[in-house]
Amino acid sequence: MEKNELEQKLEMGRHSLAHVLAKAVLKLYPSAKLTIGPVVDNGFYYDFDLLDAKIEKEDFARIEKEMKKILNANEPFERLELNKKQALELFSDNTYKVELINDLPEGEIISTYKTGNDFVDLCRGPHMENTSKLQNWGYKIDKVNGAYWRGSEKNKMLSRVYVLAFTNKKDLSNYIANREDALKRDHNKLGRELEIFMTEENIGQGLPLLMPKGATIYKALSRFVEDEGEKRGYLLTKTPFMSKNNLFKISGHWDHYKDGMFILGDEEKDKEIFALRPMTCPFQYMIYKNSLKSYKDLPKRYLENSTLFRNESSGEMHGLIRVRQFTLADAHSICTPDQVEQEFKHALEFIYHTLDVIGLREDVGFRFSKWDPNNKKKYIDNPEAWESTQIILKNILDHLGLNYEEADGEAAFYGPKLDIQIKNVFGKEDTIITIQIDFALAERFDMVYVDEAGERKRPYIIHQSIIGCYERTMALLIEKYAGAFPLWFAPEQVRVLSVTEKAEGAVKEILAELKNLNIRAELDIRNEKISKKIRDASQEKVPYMLIIGEQELENGTLAVRERKGLQTAGVSRQDFYKAMLLEINNKVIKKD
Amino acid sequence: MEKNELEQKLEMGRHSLAHVLAKAVLKLYPSAKLTIGPVVDNGFYYDFDLLDAKIEKEDFARIEKEMKKILNANEPFERLELNKKQALELFSDNTYKVELINDLPEGEIISTYKTGNDFVDLCRGPHMENTSKLQNWGYKIDKVNGAYWRGSEKNKMLSRVYVLAFTNKKDLSNYIANREDALKRDHNKLGRELEIFMTEENIGQGLPLLMPKGATIYKALSRFVEDEGEKRGYLLTKTPFMSKNNLFKISGHWDHYKDGMFILGDEEKDKEIFALRPMTCPFQYMIYKNSLKSYKDLPKRYLENSTLFRNESSGEMHGLIRVRQFTLADAHSICTPDQVEQEFKHALEFIYHTLDVIGLREDVGFRFSKWDPNNKKKYIDNPEAWESTQIILKNILDHLGLNYEEADGEAAFYGPKLDIQIKNVFGKEDTIITIQIDFALAERFDMVYVDEAGERKRPYIIHQSIIGCYERTMALLIEKYAGAFPLWFAPEQVRVLSVTEKAEGAVKEILAELKNLNIRAELDIRNEKISKKIRDASQEKVPYMLIIGEQELENGTLAVRERKGLQTAGVSRQDFYKAMLLEINNKVIKKD
Repeated sequence: MEKNELEQKLEMGRHSLAHVLAKAVLKLYPSAKLTIGPVVDNGFYYDFDLLDAKIEKEDFARIEKEMKKILNANEPFERLELNKKQALELFSDNTYKVELINDLPEGEIISTYKTGNDFVDLCRGPHMENTSKLQNWGYKIDKVNGAYWRGSEKNKMLSRVYVLAFTNKKDLSNYIANREDALKRDHNKLGRELEIFMTEENIGQGLPLLMPKGATIYKALSRFVEDEGEKRGYLLTKTPFMSKNNLFKISGHWDHYKDGMFILGDEEKDKEIFALRPMTCPFQYMIYKNSLKSYKDLPKRYLENSTLFRNESSGEMHGLIRVRQFTLADAHSICTPDQVEQEFKHALEFIYHTLDVIGLREDVGFRFSKWDPNNKKKYIDNPEAWESTQIILKNILDHLGLNYEEADGEAAFYGPKLDIQIKNVFGKEDTIITIQIDFALAERFDMVYVDEAGERKRPYIIHQSIIGCYERTMALLIEKYAGAFPLWFAPEQVRVLSVTEKAEGAVKEILAELKNLNIRAELDIRNEKISKKIRDASQEKVPYMLIIGEQELENGTLAVRERKGLQTAGVSRQDFYKAMLLEINNKVIKKD
Repeated sequence: MEKNELEQKLEMGRHSLAHVLAKAVLKLYPSAKLTIGPVVDNGFYYDFDLLDAKIEKEDFARIEKEMKKILNANEPFERLELNKKQALELFSDNTYKVELINDLPEGEIISTYKTGNDFVDLCRGPHMENTSKLQNWGYKIDKVNGAYWRGSEKNKMLSRVYVLAFTNKKDLSNYIANREDALKRDHNKLGRELEIFMTEENIGQGLPLLMPKGATIYKALSRFVEDEGEKRGYLLTKTPFMSKNNLFKISGHWDHYKDGMFILGDEEKDKEIFALRPMTCPFQYMIYKNSLKSYKDLPKRYLENSTLFRNESSGEMHGLIRVRQFTLADAHSICTPDQVEQEFKHALEFIYHTLDVIGLREDVGFRFSKWDPNNKKKYIDNPEAWESTQIILKNILDHLGLNYEEADGEAAFYGPKLDIQIKNVFGKEDTIITIQIDFALAERFDMVYVDEAGERKRPYIIHQSIIGCYERTMALLIEKYAGAFPLWFAPEQVRVLSVTEKAEGAVKEILAELKNLNIRAELDIRNEKISKKIRDASQEKVPYMLIIGEQELENGTLAVRERKGLQTAGVSRQDFYKAMLLEINNKVIKKD
């Protein structure tokens, strides 16, 4: 079935089911007043004024049974068209419907749908022919919430009944299973449970604290980016997190982005105004500018795991995703015009490799983000530069054979970009990594290089966020792996468990050997049953357990238990260590 | 000679020489007016009102010659005591002296010293017997500066003549050589020349940018601290650089340290006030508090390479030493009272090891910094806690057999500390690392652990800055090594040089092999003479050069040139790589 056809079918069926729900509720709660019942992503809801009655979870089955009866009764959906007067008369005992009808323009024909002999509701339609067409659908009352009539706190609180609805029972059960899985994987829940991060009231929203496990994941990822970057010819920098506002005036952030910045000082009172930086670019440009560069020195590639700040309101903050402070793997290639395509490709290869080793390569899509010529406030007003840079970028993307979508009004204020897009576990799409071509800042910062003819020329700048913002990427990784991280960035890689007290010495010896190889290992020599120790390590998603019991003490071998449960006895220590180092160094991603 | 005796001798001789200088200047500039001439660290200075005359560098030799004549003349220093009236009469032609005399209390006996028949100056004395006692001294006019009479801009600008003066000529030449060396090593000069760091006007004072070389040194040092810390049982954290002021109110920083903090927002206008953090402690405490700890969980050791901020005025900023933003290796052990001494020792061992591998162990001294009971503003007002914690710390220091000085009023506001002191290249002493015992913050943050009896108890906290503040430590290392860093943290470890174009392929191959071993290597295949390439690498203090010429191409070997100049031909690649990895991994500090 075509997507569009399926969508139409879902729309019509959910709409029809809303009438069925309303009829069923009226049957069980005869004094209930119907209001509205729109379709949503996963089904529909209906708002009822139940007067003194209440629908509780225990009532769902009864209502569903009533709905089933209506479907089995094969009742037709009959359209009736009325004028306003007739409609007001028909719904005169329902003040909500009267209010809705009164809001309609005079002279408009008002449609209603009748289901069976005893139920009619205002509705634009269309509907299925009859209720039996819904018999094979999968539907389920999801929950009941309070909701104000027309969304206003001044109005009465109604009962909103949510129903999940799909064209068949399998889709429904899949949806429910996926949602349960997503909720379990939600980084904002699982990340706290696994003690990867926390937030604290006195510190504030949007300022997550990476706990030892989170800090260790960050260490593994950020060192990978630095080391891999150095191999690929990037130079590391470490630049300050604040600056006098002079810098941001030159960059244009003071004009285009001031509201999003944390300002230190009062422009009217203080001689020097500082601001926390929202980006790294100009700091690396200043390093570039510290000595005059020749075309022979280009490209210059600078890389920094860079802390940035965004001044957003507390209400918008969420887990590791919406934060006030974050760390971006921020890189800039400064190159001659001839080198733009090669440098763009060079950056994309680094990003591909990064996505490969963290296992997200197959999950991403591409978006070519362009400016909005009508938004003079957001974008530098230089239409020619925009058009020409967008053509350059489009050509590069086409040469690379990327399959991308185009998006207007999504560019940075200083140039167009390639956004690497990803969906989180709830299906919400977001940008994880960008590569941007910048036509404005080299000019603003008066950056030059000396070309072969000895003349000073403007370089191009390619902005790249190699692994994106670590906090966001970590959130995606928590959700993707449900906390069961690939070995190379798992915070605890191996746990050594003693079966009895007798094994303590051996456990400590193995731990020391692992640590000596820079393998992140812990021990569990608590006075607990081995089954409990295994359960705890499994819950904390430790990739490998080494279980040291009688047999292992006798033979000097290891019983190795993988996270997914597979256990192998009689493994030699050296073989295990070798296998670990190989899996870590090759950044293997095992399918659990 | 006892230090005290030498100091007395220097004081008296420099004093006496000041009279000799004054007499010599009067001889050559008869209309000059004498003012004051105090002793300083390296000699003395004398302020002259030269009227229309000027002393230039070219005049120094003439003056020195005149001084020598006076010494050779063996003129006695004769003390003459006058009353105020007599003194005013004697110095009636010198308004400066008259002003000085008028400031003296009535009735005081005023002493003057006469040198030869024709020179007398106001002076408290004592002096040498006669000028010939100074014949073997080493002295040298150093420079002439302008200086306002009595330091006030409202007064006349005088000529201040600085003279270096030591008891013998060798001490003088040593002092001059050392000072020249110090000036060359000055991190604020050399660090910029070597492109380790830079500052930029638009970014602001006290906000140094670590350039690629500086960022690489930081990377080596900071990773060492993290990895070594993990081996020693520390848990890494990564916590936000700002917080709502609520946190700082609990910690006491809002009361005791607010002026030194960068505040975000306006207390009168904004609902939430944030501040950039001046310390890491409470962030790690919040991580500790995230779950209830048992005595079995203690000690908990947290470690973070932590960015901190200090709001100081631009005028006070200096290089990497006085900065607004810095990164501290900040660690906290949270332990039971029984564990305090053991944890203190554990921290000190980590610090010793750190000082060993960076080569500063022999340069440090110890200071036991105590509170000042009279400074209620600076210190938490809990005399009993201060006294008892100071006794605990003193006992620990004495048990450890440390040779320490005691300093009142140098403690942190929340507890006493052991300061590890070091002198920079100019002899200025500063604190590089501290270990502090904290009696206040566990209480303020309501931190607890459950003891063996199941009761909630307050833990002790030991603050430790393992390698200190990276910026300051890097400044000390730049000065100590004059930029010629030990291999393990040298930004560029090996440079591969081609003698002719023919060697390019081999050079690139060797470079790739080095990089593959994570050795930081660069190449020099410029079309330049090999002597120029060697000179450039030497100037940049690269520890090892590999020179690839005809012979090396033929034999597949390396010519290895060490930074100090020693060159060895015919070294096999594998032997060299092995030696490099050994030197790096063992963090060897070679004496160049």
